[in-house]
Amino acid sequence: MRTALVIGTGLMGTSAALALSARGVGVYLADHDESAARTAAALGAGSTDSPGQPVDLVIVAVPPAHVAATLADAIGRGLGRGYLDVASVKGGPRRDLEALGCDLGHYIGTHPMAGRERSGPLAGSADLFEGRPWVLTPTAGTDTDVLNLALELVALCRAVPVVMDADAHDRAVALVSHTPQLVASMVAARLEHAEDSAVRLCGQGILDVTRIAGSEPAMWMDILAANPGPVADVLGDVADDLAETVAALRALQSADEDKRRGGAAGIEDILRRGNAGRAKVPGKHGAAPKAYEIVAVLIGDQPGELARLFADAGAAGVNIEDVRIEHSTGQQAGLVQLTVDPRTAPALTASLRDRGWAIRK
Amino acid sequence: MRTALVIGTGLMGTSAALALSARGVGVYLADHDESAARTAAALGAGSTDSPGQPVDLVIVAVPPAHVAATLADAIGRGLGRGYLDVASVKGGPRRDLEALGCDLGHYIGTHPMAGRERSGPLAGSADLFEGRPWVLTPTAGTDTDVLNLALELVALCRAVPVVMDADAHDRAVALVSHTPQLVASMVAARLEHAEDSAVRLCGQGILDVTRIAGSEPAMWMDILAANPGPVADVLGDVADDLAETVAALRALQSADEDKRRGGAAGIEDILRRGNAGRAKVPGKHGAAPKAYEIVAVLIGDQPGELARLFADAGAAGVNIEDVRIEHSTGQQAGLVQLTVDPRTAPALTASLRDRGWAIRK
Repeated sequence: MRTALVIGTGLMGTSAALALSARGVGVYLADHDESAARTAAALGAGSTDSPGQPVDLVIVAVPPAHVAATLADAIGRGLGRGYLDVASVKGGPRRDLEALGCDLGHYIGTHPMAGRERSGPLAGSADLFEGRPWVLTPTAGTDTDVLNLALELVALCRAVPVVMDADAHDRAVALVSHTPQLVASMVAARLEHAEDSAVRLCGQGILDVTRIAGSEPAMWMDILAANPGPVADVLGDVADDLAETVAALRALQSADEDKRRGGAAGIEDILRRGNAGRAKVPGKHGAAPKAYEIVAVLIGDQPGELARLFADAGAAGVNIEDVRIEHSTGQQAGLVQLTVDPRTAPALTASLRDRGWAIRK
Repeated sequence: MRTALVIGTGLMGTSAALALSARGVGVYLADHDESAARTAAALGAGSTDSPGQPVDLVIVAVPPAHVAATLADAIGRGLGRGYLDVASVKGGPRRDLEALGCDLGHYIGTHPMAGRERSGPLAGSADLFEGRPWVLTPTAGTDTDVLNLALELVALCRAVPVVMDADAHDRAVALVSHTPQLVASMVAARLEHAEDSAVRLCGQGILDVTRIAGSEPAMWMDILAANPGPVADVLGDVADDLAETVAALRALQSADEDKRRGGAAGIEDILRRGNAGRAKVPGKHGAAPKAYEIVAVLIGDQPGELARLFADAGAAGVNIEDVRIEHSTGQQAGLVQLTVDPRTAPALTASLRDRGWAIRK
């Protein structure tokens, strides 16, 4: 790939353009908001000049609702050898393009699984896609050269290609992304009118469950509006489990021992199925979850405490896989949980104790 | 308080006993499993001897279903000046004690909001309760000396006392702890039979939402069985929001523009209420959420990378409020998000850049 045209210079388009430019591809930038394209160009993402001749790859990075029309226009004008979009939903845009009578042989729908809290060109970054899955949805009719252009884009952005059917993709993101977003919002919404004394009791569990409920509504309305069917299907299944769980809890209040036993079985069932599903969530490097051990260290709240802790952990030569800081209520101390390979935990614990750290057993 | 008797030497009882012993209180230990009491004694939690005379405070730390009978027996035998339990549910045990005809003037129900993944005396720790809320549920009939004994216990364990009505407590933990647990299990359960290609697309959002779905079912069955009514009430409210959200998503698929507009409004409503509820979740030190800024740094996966990063961050004199490591799929690099006071972010970014770190804009 020597040249590319990025249409839509928000977070995704600018990030892809920055990555391509950094690796020597000649990138042209276009946006219906010319100032956004100029901002991306000023960041080094490419040029706002017109390409003059067809580019190797046209990358459409506009909101889901505008993808089909933008692509149809670009294909109609013959702007490139190949065309792709990066929208978060894949079935609808393809069907819209078919309805518009487009020749889709030189088009491939894609979705990089990356994002961040902020949007717009200034949030763009050449490393946004590094190590992230980037879904490609070729069909039997997709030109092989175009598939290879898409694979080259993914490689230049240092992402990991994943080939899927467009509708399977939409069902998958409904399951692993869109449903968790809405459910987190529903749990958080219960707190809106909660008493302060109840809110004071919040711990790490609800903090984790509701973290993404703080997301920007406008962006999520766009995403959900483009994938309502698959999300409603998954939420419907959650609703079935929820109804059964409420019935099981009510049965636990029954005077009838058989009913109570049935209620307990229902509660155990959902907890065990939750265990089984959680065990499938990939850990680091996409591998199956590995057994880790947590070394928990109490620290003060002064600047430099974490630095000192990590310097001391580093001196032990141990690779820390993950870090979690548990916040305390009403005082300055915190508990830092270091996730490490179980084989290295005893050495780390001993080394930190030697250096005066309080380790929770 | 000079003497205490801890009945039930699991995680909670042993942790309280360790804290009291460390601060000079004479602690006696009892458990229906004598080996558990001996293990706690071997850890330095106290003595397995019989106290001989009434202690200042009897602390009942047995599973919720056994709390009332254990307390009734201790009160009947006059084992102490004051009595409390530490079970995770408060209304039921009190009503059971009343039904048993106990004099409850010298009893106070309490609940320390602390825990960990492991159970049993070996998981106990003198600092388990440090900085955590510890709920006390006195009534008009509670003896003031007994309330003060409970406050002394909380202070010796370095926890933060929170006074609440017993039933308000049970509704609060249903809201902030028991409901999030079950909902996390329901989201995770959707993954149990998901295709591998879908599971590969899991990102940080679903990882956070489902983290507590990995919890031990047996412990949660005990907790939920002791608080079924309030949990069913909150889950019922979630079910109402869920049904409305599914209807809103279906309306988004309608050919009728008014219906689509109504669907979009429904989706926006739940996302905005989620924002409002999430904003109420206390951040560090129980304060209202503060505006933080995230400085995101790319690191390699070698031992010592985090140590080097934190040493360099420490050299900048910046207090890091939280750390999150985002794992990459299929490669060795990781993204570390450092949460800091916005006023210190520019200095930290500049300092880390000077030391050669790649900072994501």
